[in-house]
Amino acid sequence: MRRVLPFVCPPSYPFWRQWVAALQEAMPDEHVVVFHELDARDLASCDVAVVANPSIEDLRALPNLKWVHSVWAGVERLVADLGDLDLKIVRLVDPVMAETMSEAVLAWTLYLHRDMPRYAKQQASREWLEHEYVGAGDKTVSLLGLGALGTASAVKLRGAGFQVCGWSRTRKSISGVQCYAGEEELLQMLGRTDILVCLLPLTSKTEGILSAEVLGALPQGASIINFARGPVVDEHALRRALDESKLSHAVLDVFNREPLPVNAWQWAHPRVTVLPHISGPTNRRTASALAAANILNYRTTGVLPISVDRKTGY
Amino acid sequence: MRRVLPFVCPPSYPFWRQWVAALQEAMPDEHVVVFHELDARDLASCDVAVVANPSIEDLRALPNLKWVHSVWAGVERLVADLGDLDLKIVRLVDPVMAETMSEAVLAWTLYLHRDMPRYAKQQASREWLEHEYVGAGDKTVSLLGLGALGTASAVKLRGAGFQVCGWSRTRKSISGVQCYAGEEELLQMLGRTDILVCLLPLTSKTEGILSAEVLGALPQGASIINFARGPVVDEHALRRALDESKLSHAVLDVFNREPLPVNAWQWAHPRVTVLPHISGPTNRRTASALAAANILNYRTTGVLPISVDRKTGY
Repeated sequence: MRRVLPFVCPPSYPFWRQWVAALQEAMPDEHVVVFHELDARDLASCDVAVVANPSIEDLRALPNLKWVHSVWAGVERLVADLGDLDLKIVRLVDPVMAETMSEAVLAWTLYLHRDMPRYAKQQASREWLEHEYVGAGDKTVSLLGLGALGTASAVKLRGAGFQVCGWSRTRKSISGVQCYAGEEELLQMLGRTDILVCLLPLTSKTEGILSAEVLGALPQGASIINFARGPVVDEHALRRALDESKLSHAVLDVFNREPLPVNAWQWAHPRVTVLPHISGPTNRRTASALAAANILNYRTTGVLPISVDRKTGY
Repeated sequence: MRRVLPFVCPPSYPFWRQWVAALQEAMPDEHVVVFHELDARDLASCDVAVVANPSIEDLRALPNLKWVHSVWAGVERLVADLGDLDLKIVRLVDPVMAETMSEAVLAWTLYLHRDMPRYAKQQASREWLEHEYVGAGDKTVSLLGLGALGTASAVKLRGAGFQVCGWSRTRKSISGVQCYAGEEELLQMLGRTDILVCLLPLTSKTEGILSAEVLGALPQGASIINFARGPVVDEHALRRALDESKLSHAVLDVFNREPLPVNAWQWAHPRVTVLPHISGPTNRRTASALAAANILNYRTTGVLPISVDRKTGY
């Protein structure tokens, strides 16, 4: 009986072939097969799978599955869907992903800082008009979440000359970054924020954390970047803040429903930049190497890597 | 007779009041007056003026003018218009401007690198589609011009992880940057360039340097950023390269005629981002301080700062 290592992803996921190839290259001793090409015997043989946003039904079809290795960092939906399924989830903690995500934070912060949305509107109406430039040193960028992604982003933003603040559940200490913790300090930080960048994991404690009240603590004309998960932001409160010009712009890479439905208000809102969840793409090569190391170690020693805490969700 | 220090700018320039205030604050012993508020006696009294893209007619109206201090770095039009007027031109060499310009180079390089124009088009058609991400380390950004602005930009781009090349008239040496010089090496450099950033001063030698032949040396799908001067690029060759999809995008901050006329093709071209000459805004505070130091030294010692070479134009 051949032992296969399945790659489980939604049927619509466009890059599954590339993932199978990258994983196969990183694990020459495994036989990597995409889920929808597994036969009945394969299904029974699998004790570990590599997953990219899999459906829980597909995972239930693998009766001997002990653990899954996600190639994405965010696994909150998977954790929520587990129910009575006794399955350990290992999520990707990829230093290269922190590099890519912090690059996106810098890129879209500069996009807002250098007024790109405003100049794009002017181009559409053939308007030649210079706006006053305010230097990075006179702007404060605040990060929600100071894990691997937030910390790497803070360092990049400091390097670009911005004033940088950061907020996390438990207080952190990062050189050159004003660190806040706890609910009361969140409002304090927002009061001095020009650009707010959300990198929080989605958990029961962070769902809807950007409420009308919290958004209301931002100064008039502030901007927001959400690279975390859609439900972290109260969408109605966000829409109202944009409609009332309380917020000058929102860069949204994540949504309550993805792909964003064609009739969603965000597509055509003049103060919204819609991105199709591309801020922190996983690097297939490095992610495959990390998964390979964990799976090889498991094959050799029987020991699983550290898995996600089902209570906190990360 | 009061001695006035005129500020000479086009009548349409929107920020003259702010400039007069900043210059006055930096030079409490001078009486700073905008050109159009000078009276006949003032006109006769001036031996030095601070200028921002002034008309040569206005300067001719100041019969005792010995030199002018530009608050802009680019003075090529002024030099070209001088004719028989015996006037020394001191241009702004402001380290803060190099900072602002190199920030713009990084910002719009990341704009292209992270596919922002493509995702903006997708948003307009409500299309949710992820494109493959290629890391900064696998892209080459090349700078035309390695003066103060080009060197500061090269350092920032290196810091962001890009492969960086640079070309200049005389060979430079910058750590971590592959430096090229001379016509033959220009084509060599372009052959390996993904994003080309133009920061050359406009001189008789650089006018039209980005010709059809030179643009043709870029790989299929390369992009270009022009933050220098419009005439450095052969506009017809650029348009053809964009129309034929040889170039994937152009970010243009400078044009042959500014403001860009409303009927110009660039406004509506799907592969062009039009900016109203905002990449390197002068910082009024630091520029005023630099002008003040030069003018005070002249008042005290009679010595002029180093002025522009009318042959090279910078």
